[in-house]
Amino acid sequence: MGKRIGLIAGNGQFPIIFTKAARKEGYEVIAVAHIGETEPSLENYVNEIEWIRVGQLGRLIKFFKKKNIKELVFVGGIKKKKLFSNIFPDLKALTLLARLRHKHDDAALRAVADELEREGFIVCPSTLFVPSLLAEEGCLTNRKPTKEEKKDIEFGWQMAKAIGKLDIGQCVVVKRQVVVAVEAVEGTDETIKRGGRLAKEGAVVVKVSKPNQDLRFDVPAVGKGTIETMMHVKAKVLAIEAKRTLIFDKERMVSLANEADISIVSLKKS
Amino acid sequence: MGKRIGLIAGNGQFPIIFTKAARKEGYEVIAVAHIGETEPSLENYVNEIEWIRVGQLGRLIKFFKKKNIKELVFVGGIKKKKLFSNIFPDLKALTLLARLRHKHDDAALRAVADELEREGFIVCPSTLFVPSLLAEEGCLTNRKPTKEEKKDIEFGWQMAKAIGKLDIGQCVVVKRQVVVAVEAVEGTDETIKRGGRLAKEGAVVVKVSKPNQDLRFDVPAVGKGTIETMMHVKAKVLAIEAKRTLIFDKERMVSLANEADISIVSLKKS
Repeated sequence: MGKRIGLIAGNGQFPIIFTKAARKEGYEVIAVAHIGETEPSLENYVNEIEWIRVGQLGRLIKFFKKKNIKELVFVGGIKKKKLFSNIFPDLKALTLLARLRHKHDDAALRAVADELEREGFIVCPSTLFVPSLLAEEGCLTNRKPTKEEKKDIEFGWQMAKAIGKLDIGQCVVVKRQVVVAVEAVEGTDETIKRGGRLAKEGAVVVKVSKPNQDLRFDVPAVGKGTIETMMHVKAKVLAIEAKRTLIFDKERMVSLANEADISIVSLKKS
Repeated sequence: MGKRIGLIAGNGQFPIIFTKAARKEGYEVIAVAHIGETEPSLENYVNEIEWIRVGQLGRLIKFFKKKNIKELVFVGGIKKKKLFSNIFPDLKALTLLARLRHKHDDAALRAVADELEREGFIVCPSTLFVPSLLAEEGCLTNRKPTKEEKKDIEFGWQMAKAIGKLDIGQCVVVKRQVVVAVEAVEGTDETIKRGGRLAKEGAVVVKVSKPNQDLRFDVPAVGKGTIETMMHVKAKVLAIEAKRTLIFDKERMVSLANEADISIVSLKKS
């Protein structure tokens, strides 16, 4: 039997990108996908797929054991707003939830990962086969941030890190050293829309990893869609964290930003 | 000449409430009101009024000096989103803005207050004549928070204080110990709407003063409108800070909450 990996697939394009990369490395990909979250076309890329509802942890474990999977990855998020509806926790998940003191995002994911490791699985980083998707340091666009925007990046970075430390969210929208919008459960696109509208033109978007980020899941990600949202509200700068942010569709994202005269900067700060 | 006080009027009903209370105490109220922000009917309550645009600080100073005003109060906010549009800073205001390192809300207000004091004015707390509007400790409604909601209040309190310490905002919406929405520039009502919608039913709203709150301005305030917004999204609990929150329209607010089976709790925590 060849190399096999278990894919716990969330939403977005990342599960498909991951699958292509893993198969290129010679891995078979056995997926558990979430109804209403995971892109249905993932079926066309993986070797096997099982569809479950969000929260069916017992079923997920049973499936991967039956398939003799040892290594697992979480790829793609589950929309946090789903946590308040459309969730069908089975007994296993309920027991886990009951043990959680804070039902924070990361705490919950970490608890699930720990539970899986107790069951004998190894949870690997989602960036395993796709290190090339991690943002390199530097300015990716033709347009560089202005002096004033650099101040906003610096200020927004501190704020986003503080918000991340509280395990609330990863993204803030800033203008003239005022935090215009903070991301919580609504997600990055909504935050950019709200912040961009309130700031009128020229907002600066900062998206960073949490200080205690577990790179096994919920790595910050940006893509073409991020720039489209920014264009919509005339935001001007996207600042991300080098080596800790996934960029999907990099070429198209950067060329779109260049067309729209938007700056994308990837920074490394302690 | 009798006792006179200078009123720097922002939006909402607070300037009118303040004026009535001050005149009852025998004060003449001389107001500077902000076009597009201040309720036009304030004219009917004050002794004199001067309408300016947001940012005309030099003009404000000149007016109060001409009127021989010594004591000033800031009453009612300027919608923070206005800070990015409709602002017409005069030379005085521009000089001030240029000196500010961070253009945070509080920092900006404090700088304006400091400037006014340098000009010889005394800036008094906005609660001067209305101590009765400050929330007393206790549960104000028939409905008491459940055990689970108490956990959310405890958790939300810590989060809101942390957000306040960063000078971002004063309000968070929480459910099952997850921060669903954080207030920044959009204001409390928008935050409740967003958080309440994402949480589905049963959200807990926590609104507190900032750890470094300067009670001269921007004291947290709630009223009937807060409860109406909560009803709209089926939120269940409003937690506020005793002695550091203004309640407008208290009777109507509490009776509305009772009708809607909403809890209002006013707490004192260090």
